[in-house]
Amino acid sequence: MDKTQRTASGMRPTGPLHLGHYFGVLKNYVELQEKVQAYFFVADWHALTSDYADPSMLLANTEAMVSDWLAAGLDPDKCVIFRQSALTEHCELSLLLSMITPVSWLERNPTYKEQQQQITNKDLGNAGFLCYPVLMAADILLYKPQYVPVGEDQLPHMELTREIARRFNNFYGPTFPEPQAALTPAAKCPGLDGRKMSKSYNNGIFLSEDMANIEPKIRNMLTEPSRKRRQDPGDPKKCNLYPYHELLSSQEEQAEICDGCTKAQMGCVDCKKIFLKNLAAFLEPLHERRAKWTARKGAVAEILDAGNAKARAFSSVTMQEVRQKMGL
Amino acid sequence: MDKTQRTASGMRPTGPLHLGHYFGVLKNYVELQEKVQAYFFVADWHALTSDYADPSMLLANTEAMVSDWLAAGLDPDKCVIFRQSALTEHCELSLLLSMITPVSWLERNPTYKEQQQQITNKDLGNAGFLCYPVLMAADILLYKPQYVPVGEDQLPHMELTREIARRFNNFYGPTFPEPQAALTPAAKCPGLDGRKMSKSYNNGIFLSEDMANIEPKIRNMLTEPSRKRRQDPGDPKKCNLYPYHELLSSQEEQAEICDGCTKAQMGCVDCKKIFLKNLAAFLEPLHERRAKWTARKGAVAEILDAGNAKARAFSSVTMQEVRQKMGL
Repeated sequence: MDKTQRTASGMRPTGPLHLGHYFGVLKNYVELQEKVQAYFFVADWHALTSDYADPSMLLANTEAMVSDWLAAGLDPDKCVIFRQSALTEHCELSLLLSMITPVSWLERNPTYKEQQQQITNKDLGNAGFLCYPVLMAADILLYKPQYVPVGEDQLPHMELTREIARRFNNFYGPTFPEPQAALTPAAKCPGLDGRKMSKSYNNGIFLSEDMANIEPKIRNMLTEPSRKRRQDPGDPKKCNLYPYHELLSSQEEQAEICDGCTKAQMGCVDCKKIFLKNLAAFLEPLHERRAKWTARKGAVAEILDAGNAKARAFSSVTMQEVRQKMGL
Repeated sequence: MDKTQRTASGMRPTGPLHLGHYFGVLKNYVELQEKVQAYFFVADWHALTSDYADPSMLLANTEAMVSDWLAAGLDPDKCVIFRQSALTEHCELSLLLSMITPVSWLERNPTYKEQQQQITNKDLGNAGFLCYPVLMAADILLYKPQYVPVGEDQLPHMELTREIARRFNNFYGPTFPEPQAALTPAAKCPGLDGRKMSKSYNNGIFLSEDMANIEPKIRNMLTEPSRKRRQDPGDPKKCNLYPYHELLSSQEEQAEICDGCTKAQMGCVDCKKIFLKNLAAFLEPLHERRAKWTARKGAVAEILDAGNAKARAFSSVTMQEVRQKMGL
């Protein structure tokens, strides 16, 4: 990868980001901006594919998410940060790609079937939800990226994107390179209660939280169930906190903790203290960057405006080519 | 209806228009431009929903269709003539309406099911074809029209448009008036061979044809099957030509022809002569207008450019309202 290559990726604005988002996606974004031309967008139209019934938080969530991106180290001088819904190129390409996308490909999308079965508090029988992988393909292909950072669960979407690109190229001539999935190793970030970290479970540690807020939550955090008493030996592999040491603590600390836990020489309280120290060190630069950006009133809106223009400069060229090839 | 009211309607650019198009749709357009603010568009994206495999004729067909509109008397000073694909507002609203449109509504669309069964030379399993009624709803609702001119076969689309409008208004507050269908009486325009007039059957009389071209086709045109000889009495109700007399001939001529046919006093050759005379009189002003527009090089492109700007002036205001209501 080098700066002549491109990547494109978006996140749904669901609100403030937590450690799970950071280690799962955002850390990767921060690294990518150094290596390639990176287009990162707020996928607000995607948010509407499932949360169409109440979009009242969309703008606030967008602001919160971009603030977290900036706090985490995304730099508008190094990457393009923009808002999907500001670029009609995305919906225009999505419409055009829908012409050549068989409905059966969309019905076979594993996420479509899974979410329809699992999510019972929302009606996901809407056309926008069926067709979201076409919009996703447009989001990506507009920037003709070589690589797209994805988690394992996103691989079927990438395969569909490549199939749509291939079909387009077959009908209208070579246009879209088939983007490769740059697989992000899944980072294990369990929630405070051991379930998946999620805002809706209220079990998260958020990037914007200060330590005073976090500390009591960590004190009550679930650790290793077999260590009911201080003198019970534990197994870090079964501990809910230990994955965070793998992400935030030094090799020496990890070794010390493993040893202390399995031999019952270190208690969970002390283990949590090491975690809190390292978490504070991790969050400090994020909070500093956040403070810097917050001091500039209207910074997020300005960054998005400038990013929208940069993204449009690229995607509008792609659209000219696409329109011409489709006879428009 | 008055000039404070609006209408919006589009036609797929399938090539030169024939008499069937004129009496079925275009005549109505020409009347509507006098009565209401009329937005008439070239539905080129709709053409792609079924003819995505070969869009090479799309631009030429657009030019030919708009030329026919102008020849028929549509006047860019009286109505807005524009190109759907030039207005991203149409695809943006379509995307947003897809969020609230159940897939089941689209699957129940009678035209969807019919065409999938009847049209066997094209693969209509594409997402763009399933979702075309959403695009159609966007095409209409953007202009908040009171009336939409439709044929009987379009009534289910209008019902769907109203249902989508109602659902939008329920979710996000009153936005779209529910447009009423202004039903166009079906004009009977059989083709030269008695089947439906259609370019693909090669049985049409085109608005751009000159009489020298039309005359031999009419000489060979099917009339009343029971009049094998001049002295056989006929029945105008069973005649393939007679519907044209109802559209083009005077009351007196119609009475004379009916009488002459049923009493075998007038032969088909003479009956065709009356038709040719009246057809020539009908086509003459169309040819004159066409000549006037053709003399102005680039007129169609200019008219579309100006119309696009006028359509955008209205539809962009609707989109601002929609975006704001959907939290964007």
